[in-house]
Amino acid sequence: MKFTAKCYPIKAEKPIVIMNEADAKFLGVYVSGRVSLSHRGREITAIVNTTKSFVDEHEIGLYKDVTDILKVRAGDKIMLKPTERPKSVEFIKKKIDGYTLNYEEIYSIIKDVVDDNLSSIELTAFVTGGYMAGYNLDEIVSLTQAIVKTGRQIDFGDDIVDKHCIGGVAGNRTTMLIVPIVAAAGATIPKTSSRAITSPAGTADTMEVLAPVDFGVEELQRIIRKINACISWGGAVNLAPADDKIIQVEYPLSLDAEGHVLSSVMAKKISVGSDYILIDIPVGVGSKVPNPEKADEMKHNFIELGKRLGVAVDCVITNGSSPIGNGIGPALEARDVLLSLENNGSVSLVKKSVMLAGNLLELAGKAKKGTGRRIAKRILDSGKAKAKMMEIIEEQGGNPEIKPDDIKIGKKEETIKSDGEGRVKFINNKEISAIARAAGAPRDKTSGLYLHINPGDFVDKGDALFTIYSSKNRRLNNAMELADTLKPVKYV
Amino acid sequence: MKFTAKCYPIKAEKPIVIMNEADAKFLGVYVSGRVSLSHRGREITAIVNTTKSFVDEHEIGLYKDVTDILKVRAGDKIMLKPTERPKSVEFIKKKIDGYTLNYEEIYSIIKDVVDDNLSSIELTAFVTGGYMAGYNLDEIVSLTQAIVKTGRQIDFGDDIVDKHCIGGVAGNRTTMLIVPIVAAAGATIPKTSSRAITSPAGTADTMEVLAPVDFGVEELQRIIRKINACISWGGAVNLAPADDKIIQVEYPLSLDAEGHVLSSVMAKKISVGSDYILIDIPVGVGSKVPNPEKADEMKHNFIELGKRLGVAVDCVITNGSSPIGNGIGPALEARDVLLSLENNGSVSLVKKSVMLAGNLLELAGKAKKGTGRRIAKRILDSGKAKAKMMEIIEEQGGNPEIKPDDIKIGKKEETIKSDGEGRVKFINNKEISAIARAAGAPRDKTSGLYLHINPGDFVDKGDALFTIYSSKNRRLNNAMELADTLKPVKYV
Repeated sequence: MKFTAKCYPIKAEKPIVIMNEADAKFLGVYVSGRVSLSHRGREITAIVNTTKSFVDEHEIGLYKDVTDILKVRAGDKIMLKPTERPKSVEFIKKKIDGYTLNYEEIYSIIKDVVDDNLSSIELTAFVTGGYMAGYNLDEIVSLTQAIVKTGRQIDFGDDIVDKHCIGGVAGNRTTMLIVPIVAAAGATIPKTSSRAITSPAGTADTMEVLAPVDFGVEELQRIIRKINACISWGGAVNLAPADDKIIQVEYPLSLDAEGHVLSSVMAKKISVGSDYILIDIPVGVGSKVPNPEKADEMKHNFIELGKRLGVAVDCVITNGSSPIGNGIGPALEARDVLLSLENNGSVSLVKKSVMLAGNLLELAGKAKKGTGRRIAKRILDSGKAKAKMMEIIEEQGGNPEIKPDDIKIGKKEETIKSDGEGRVKFINNKEISAIARAAGAPRDKTSGLYLHINPGDFVDKGDALFTIYSSKNRRLNNAMELADTLKPVKYV
Repeated sequence: MKFTAKCYPIKAEKPIVIMNEADAKFLGVYVSGRVSLSHRGREITAIVNTTKSFVDEHEIGLYKDVTDILKVRAGDKIMLKPTERPKSVEFIKKKIDGYTLNYEEIYSIIKDVVDDNLSSIELTAFVTGGYMAGYNLDEIVSLTQAIVKTGRQIDFGDDIVDKHCIGGVAGNRTTMLIVPIVAAAGATIPKTSSRAITSPAGTADTMEVLAPVDFGVEELQRIIRKINACISWGGAVNLAPADDKIIQVEYPLSLDAEGHVLSSVMAKKISVGSDYILIDIPVGVGSKVPNPEKADEMKHNFIELGKRLGVAVDCVITNGSSPIGNGIGPALEARDVLLSLENNGSVSLVKKSVMLAGNLLELAGKAKKGTGRRIAKRILDSGKAKAKMMEIIEEQGGNPEIKPDDIKIGKKEETIKSDGEGRVKFINNKEISAIARAAGAPRDKTSGLYLHINPGDFVDKGDALFTIYSSKNRRLNNAMELADTLKPVKYV
């Protein structure tokens, strides 16, 4: 049946068409049912909404997502027919009913996720079902391969090294030290990082304080060819589009399915051709992995998954019970990084970064077993890591002369002091993150907080615990109130 | 923050607002995030879609669902602020994580379901989570009470009797015989029925061949006061709106959660004040309940649920392995019903209806234990049931003089003959339904099929098995092809 197009530049969650109720009834499609639209050889499946009056009979209202793909203009006649739900919905049902899926079934689901062939209901059922039923290792291998295959793969050459952190630890900008250290040692590390979703700063947000991070594939390949390292925003390259769509469901439900974490991390690494991958698994109260047993299990699964996928993976289980580094928030963390590159920064950040960089050098065969950490430390102390970082900043379009003091920090500040005394047991990551976000991070890059104390320190009443920075008084006050309520510094 | 309203008469799945991307970014809301809108004391929560150009900054695009509730007109200034996800999302997460929910938690979810406070993602997670984790009886009691409380309740007086069938059996129009029989015996039975979703005919579709079925509450109360019985479409009264919204998620996923079936059935009965409820549980290959063990469990749960809710429930487990009656499709089934009321119809339909009507009379105290079936048969034989049905037809606005032969059946017909010989073991319900639907049922009321044989019959090669009727040659051919592929008549 032919319909006359009416076009609306609305961006919806899914391809949607608006039909007159009479047409929908005639064709036997229900609200949230599916139709296939075709126009001059292009085809798309869309979800149906109905209206009594907004579009007349034989008219069809199209949103931006649909008109862009079909190249339809208002008034065009387009072909529409009701379609069955895709085969993959059967496999989603199978998973929900407790069965194991094979590669073809998982690929069929992931392909439809990426192609927007699933309604929000079907996609959510897939994500919830996978979370509740869990995935075995065979399924996780399939998931990873399917996510890679349905996304963009980038060739950066041979012997690519990479690192990933499971997250949940405030500060913790080790990537911005590890990348220049291992690159200075001769490794090729095309690092793509994420922006903050629930944290006060992602690596991409922090790097952006020093240089642009938003590069397409060709630009990244050019940078890697020239200086064998980058720190860019992964979202700018279409690496694992299935992953992004799955996260859009997980996020509002606070789901964190281990099978999805494993496949998501590995898919992104394999998409950039990584051969040697080091994974940091922080464990502790307030981090994403609550206990050492869970961390061991995750480590085992990552290494096994690496074997099955033909890449070398090692995992380091680290202490995630307190923030790493002193600055929390993009600018404060960027300043920490620059200070650390001058060997003048946070002890915890430098120590952890050197340890991870050493492990990565050993894994990649750039250092003999047992020598990695020493080599990494020497590269940092020699200034070679700093020089490499400045090269990266310059190549990405930033100022290679930047000094720690050049970095702008929020002008409104207030220091939180201890109202008791004792020895610091830990500093709660989730609470510190919430305070930094209340101050304005990550959107306001200059906001956040600076920790004056570390776990193990003895604190007297009135000692400075941390200073909150913001560009706005209102936000500073919100953050201070929150700090007062949460009391993120915990004593023994 | 105040926005200028732009109104679009689009009916979406959920309350949706369209914001300029710049505004969304400023307010920190993401696509699919939530905002609260208020206008002159009215308030609503809506899901955010974004656009670059369709609405300008400081404008907000509103769909019909939203403008109707807020009573907003184009150009009005309305207040908008980002909101947290509702508390009920926490309880949904709790269920997904395997915990049991209490009444307050379940009520909070169901209330948000009915008020459209949940995004499609959250609602689907609730439905999928409940299906996968299951509900215990306490939870099912809570679900039922919450569904009743969030819907409309209708007072039809005291001593209300009701019946329900779990479904899955083709033909099986017992309701249209049971209602006139028990009503003729003096019981009050305000029967609300459903239309077909996946079957070739619902009771409402079939009754509609004889009389209108689409009545509001006051009209139904008037009919019941006058003639103590009706057979109406339940969808026209807002009995259990939560149920409809849950079904909209279950249907595309083919989920059939027992906990939801139990609460859904009981909520609808309690909403019309039913005191005595008889439930027909057909069991067998191709019906909804696959084996007697499952049927026994369901029976036990229904009776126990009735006790907890203070209503008398009995269940009859019936043979659901083959269709009941000969006609399949609204008109063909309506004709079967009229013939049966003249004691000239399908043996299986009459027998089953009399048995169920007898049980219901006993349950409601209108017949002594052991006498119900005999009384029901006498009422049918005496013509009193037919007279009552004609009263119902007349009162609902149909023609009380209607004869079986007056009912129009699709003009295109073709008879399927046996290509082998043997004794009929069973006739597959799902396959028969699929063939009748291919012929055009339920939308085309005159389409369907008529069975010439019953389980137990001996069939020779060339004997007529069933005749397919349709108003369209194309559909007739589709149905014949399907009959040829499926071969729904199974031999011993």
